[in-house]
Amino acid sequence: MTDRNWTFERAQRVVDDWIGQWDEGYWSPLSNLARLTEEVGELARRINELTGDKPCDDPPASRRKLADEFGDVLFTVVVLANSLEIDLQDALREAIAKYDARDADRFTSSDN
Amino acid sequence: MTDRNWTFERAQRVVDDWIGQWDEGYWSPLSNLARLTEEVGELARRINELTGDKPCDDPPASRRKLADEFGDVLFTVVVLANSLEIDLQDALREAIAKYDARDADRFTSSDN
Amino acid sequence: MTDRNWTFERAQRVVDDWIGQWDEGYWSPLSNLARLTEEVGELARRINELTGDKPCDDPPASRRKLADEFGDVLFTVVVLANSLEIDLQDALREAIAKYDARDADRFTSSDN
Amino acid sequence: MTDRNWTFERAQRVVDDWIGQWDEGYWSPLSNLARLTEEVGELARRINELTGDKPCDDPPASRRKLADEFGDVLFTVVVLANSLEIDLQDALREAIAKYDARDADRFTSSDN
Repeated sequence: MTDRNWTFERAQRVVDDWIGQWDEGYWSPLSNLARLTEEVGELARRINELTGDKPCDDPPASRRKLADEFGDVLFTVVVLANSLEIDLQDALREAIAKYDARDADRFTSSDN
Repeated sequence: MTDRNWTFERAQRVVDDWIGQWDEGYWSPLSNLARLTEEVGELARRINELTGDKPCDDPPASRRKLADEFGDVLFTVVVLANSLEIDLQDALREAIAKYDARDADRFTSSDN
Repeated sequence: MTDRNWTFERAQRVVDDWIGQWDEGYWSPLSNLARLTEEVGELARRINELTGDKPCDDPPASRRKLADEFGDVLFTVVVLANSLEIDLQDALREAIAKYDARDADRFTSSDN
Repeated sequence: MTDRNWTFERAQRVVDDWIGQWDEGYWSPLSNLARLTEEVGELARRINELTGDKPCDDPPASRRKLADEFGDVLFTVVVLANSLEIDLQDALREAIAKYDARDADRFTSSDN
């Protein structure tokens, strides 16, 4: 996977094409939200095994599953955004602009 | 915001630069996970107001906040991925490849 | 299980005794929160299978697991409350008192 | 609040009476799940402020809100359980029985 040029726009279009394969189409937003809750829960399990107090029998396997869970979470965010007509690139850029304004005095600048 | 070429790689780098401004650096993965739980909760509130049973006094305001919450969720996913050295483009592409293999018989093809 | 007199206080004590069996003791609050996120995610999966758009191969099995997931969520809430010295009965009663005050005009009284 | 005898059964009945006041009745399970996601998110915020890396301007206020969030989470669990006809006392007791069987060899007994 050497092609590094996946944009958010492309991800939203690829996912829309993927959903378009099926007669069922998009789930309801509440159903996709339930799925996001499920996927974030699976991510939580791996993070707790790898960095928290949850016992972990097989750290390398947990680490591989961690990457899978990020994929599942991100896919579900894209599906949910598509179904609600949200542009993810705009949303992310506006979030960063908001934090720039808000956090100017909240953390300690490393320029000192 | 007409520039449509934000890639996942660029988003991960921009967020890394943003975090690098502060002496505090990245939070622990469990703290960022708690933040992701918080942000998904705020997204849930808006989806429940707009499409579920939660009463909503001001739908246009809720709709604007919905876009904000997607930005906050996505930002937090990127921060968490950076802190755990996860490549989000690879993760998303591998998720889609996994679903292609798994769901071939699960839903109904719209090609019929 | 005909004994119907489990109080919240008893539940918090039984769970404390259960944790007290192990040298590891209570996990950190952030680790227990990650576990709560995981358990709520599993509950979400069952609710989505039983009442949402997620396909479900075996509804009776999903229904049995639904009850299990409520047990896991409740257990984790009790563990987390114990580790943070929260009295759950007081917390629940104060929540109800708060809603009584807040929602007097929010929903429609069935007394009409 | 010196009355320490709130049982799970009583909590489920009190909440059912509370919901019964309103013509709207119970929300759909997916809507109550979205609300649970929201309330767990607010709990996550307080735990992150009090024990994690999230900055906290006013720890005593955050501590008071922590207790409130436990009340909101527990209330929502009871509402959701009622709407799905789950007996919470049975669910909790069966969870503890399950852990007794599963974790006998997972943690270290403090009896040594």
